[in-house]
Amino acid sequence: MNNSTHVAVIGAGVIGLCWAALFAAKGYEVQVYDPRDDLDDQLTHTLPLYLKQIPDLPQDVNSILSRVHACHDLKKATMDAKYIQESGPESVTFKQALWAEIEQYVSADCLLLSSSSGIVASTQGAKMNNSHRIVIGHPFNPPHILPLVEICAAKTTSPQLIQQATEFYQSLGKFPVALNHEKSGFVANRLQMALVLEAIKLVNEGVVGIKELDDIVTHSLGIRWASVGPLLAFHLGGGAGGLTHLLEHIGVGLANAIGQPDMLTNDLISAIGKQANNAYPKRDLQHYCDERDRRQQVIINDQNSH
Amino acid sequence: MNNSTHVAVIGAGVIGLCWAALFAAKGYEVQVYDPRDDLDDQLTHTLPLYLKQIPDLPQDVNSILSRVHACHDLKKATMDAKYIQESGPESVTFKQALWAEIEQYVSADCLLLSSSSGIVASTQGAKMNNSHRIVIGHPFNPPHILPLVEICAAKTTSPQLIQQATEFYQSLGKFPVALNHEKSGFVANRLQMALVLEAIKLVNEGVVGIKELDDIVTHSLGIRWASVGPLLAFHLGGGAGGLTHLLEHIGVGLANAIGQPDMLTNDLISAIGKQANNAYPKRDLQHYCDERDRRQQVIINDQNSH
Repeated sequence: MNNSTHVAVIGAGVIGLCWAALFAAKGYEVQVYDPRDDLDDQLTHTLPLYLKQIPDLPQDVNSILSRVHACHDLKKATMDAKYIQESGPESVTFKQALWAEIEQYVSADCLLLSSSSGIVASTQGAKMNNSHRIVIGHPFNPPHILPLVEICAAKTTSPQLIQQATEFYQSLGKFPVALNHEKSGFVANRLQMALVLEAIKLVNEGVVGIKELDDIVTHSLGIRWASVGPLLAFHLGGGAGGLTHLLEHIGVGLANAIGQPDMLTNDLISAIGKQANNAYPKRDLQHYCDERDRRQQVIINDQNSH
Repeated sequence: MNNSTHVAVIGAGVIGLCWAALFAAKGYEVQVYDPRDDLDDQLTHTLPLYLKQIPDLPQDVNSILSRVHACHDLKKATMDAKYIQESGPESVTFKQALWAEIEQYVSADCLLLSSSSGIVASTQGAKMNNSHRIVIGHPFNPPHILPLVEICAAKTTSPQLIQQATEFYQSLGKFPVALNHEKSGFVANRLQMALVLEAIKLVNEGVVGIKELDDIVTHSLGIRWASVGPLLAFHLGGGAGGLTHLLEHIGVGLANAIGQPDMLTNDLISAIGKQANNAYPKRDLQHYCDERDRRQQVIINDQNSH
């Protein structure tokens, strides 16, 4: 059993530094490894800015900062670590070489986590002896503030490792969600990009300006989706017929309008509708409605008062 | 000058009733027209439920309800109105016939508004003598709670009418955004559908379950987009290079991942990036960042405390 309270953060860009701030705030000793010349400067001047954004810090900023150490030697940075959070460049060559080297230094039960938003775990581990050890822990920027962490690993990775990663992020106050299998771009960024591409099309066609488009979202979809997810929102909006009814009633026409007329087949609508009924049992729907309404009002009140 | 304080709501489905609640709460006399048999019952039993969801009601519920009148005669419902808010069935035939009839009853300066989410104003007005009078005022469901109203009219509609519609919704505490030209599905629902279709694909492939997908959004994109819009979020996330840098750096790869590899050309990225720099001048970016962070934290705190 690895009882270390050390975390190694590899890469001191924005993502790495935000992670370092969070790990230190939660009591870990943090080794930050990065070849950049100004690493000390980043830890002295940038790190405190992130740290101050974390609510309810358990100690004063300087005490927390004293647990963060700049480290220019990869072996020293990782050898005592219980967790590695890799946040280096998005380069396959870089990550494969990095993990192959780190593998030589770390204990057998050190958890190897990567912040990568694009390179799946099976690719990253290709040059390791045990290529199944890596788990993606993809944060939503900035990692010390937004709750989501997407967890994703190769098919061959043991469920135990995924569970350990999940528990680690939960212990930090994050909201980890494990994906069932590897998918390029994971989930949140794919969803984000689908909406942004449609947004860019509308702006490019001159239907609205950029600011109007942003205003439209913050005063409608944003409020809705911070309160309930997109599928539950449709499921609740569909009345007694739920998601199935809503997709039949307005989904098909809108899919056609945005250039995906063949997407919503009857079979697909029926299959997804069934999954919605299972995921959100009838007895809970009133609770979901009430909580949606309550949350939406909190956000609207805050928007109106600023 | 029409000094009436009457609004006619055509159609007493959910959208119509929510509008009726809001109009009455804001002091208007409301005529609700619908051929449905249970119209009186809806006004007596359903309307108060919507009314109670409106924050800071200026009077007790019964006083407000006394301003809402069931009306089975279209002429009586509309002849004294300063505003018509049409929320009937989404049928071209129905709406064209309805407006052609209403046109005979209303005063020349009565504002003709439609809640339609799908049928553009120029189509709706095709059977009228003055087919340029209709303005879409498309609410985001439920209209008495969510702020957005999309305003959209035919090319031939006078800017003055659009301005009047904007001011009317603003006076109700709504957040109207006028589109530059007619577009099927308008903006918010097109954006919504783009994301939902990608969500359905991911669920259908088994990458995540429905509940996990909803959880992912409420803990990341929802928080972000309730705080800043999708394009400003990318613009701020792109650092000194703004939206251009972000689209080049991760946008192109993600567009490829979701099956739209040809979308983000260099020319498009450059044009959209320029628009972002104009819409969001450099001097304001720190303010936008601060406000994004503040809003996000309010939402996260609320999510954590419930």
